[in-house]
Amino acid sequence: MKAKVFVTIKENVLDPQGNAVQGALHTMGFAEVGKVRIGKYMEIELDTADRNEGEQRLIAMCEKLLANTVIEDYRYELEG
Amino acid sequence: MKAKVFVTIKENVLDPQGNAVQGALHTMGFAEVGKVRIGKYMEIELDTADRNEGEQRLIAMCEKLLANTVIEDYRYELEG
Repeated sequence: MKAKVFVTIKENVLDPQGNAVQGALHTMGFAEVGKVRIGKYMEIELDTADRNEGEQRLIAMCEKLLANTVIEDYRYELEG
Repeated sequence: MKAKVFVTIKENVLDPQGNAVQGALHTMGFAEVGKVRIGKYMEIELDTADRNEGEQRLIAMCEKLLANTVIEDYRYELEG
């Protein structure tokens, strides 16, 4: 089973990395660029047969390690 | 228009960050975790009416700034 996890900064939390990229794109002439938000994208292979159990374990991984839930949101997709 | 950009490390390039996360998950008891690959996920607002032009400009942004195409791949989705 393969999991794709998307970790994004919560809407009301500042994203200095995103602001830096936005500024750089403007400087490079991409004036049409508005808000830029930068997050993480993870692909994780899981050696689990039971989809429900795999999902519960993946949620535990996200809550405990992959995302800082104080300032970040996460979502995931399970394949296979 | 909103763009979602996924930047991932090429398959044959080492991903030390992914290896570190894999090791941490194993240490935490998630023994089912196989390969972990970590990339970037970006949401970019584009003030462009023309979808084709917006896409071409987005590709230019990826090639010039958002991805290091020597070691990274990128893909994108355009919405709206």
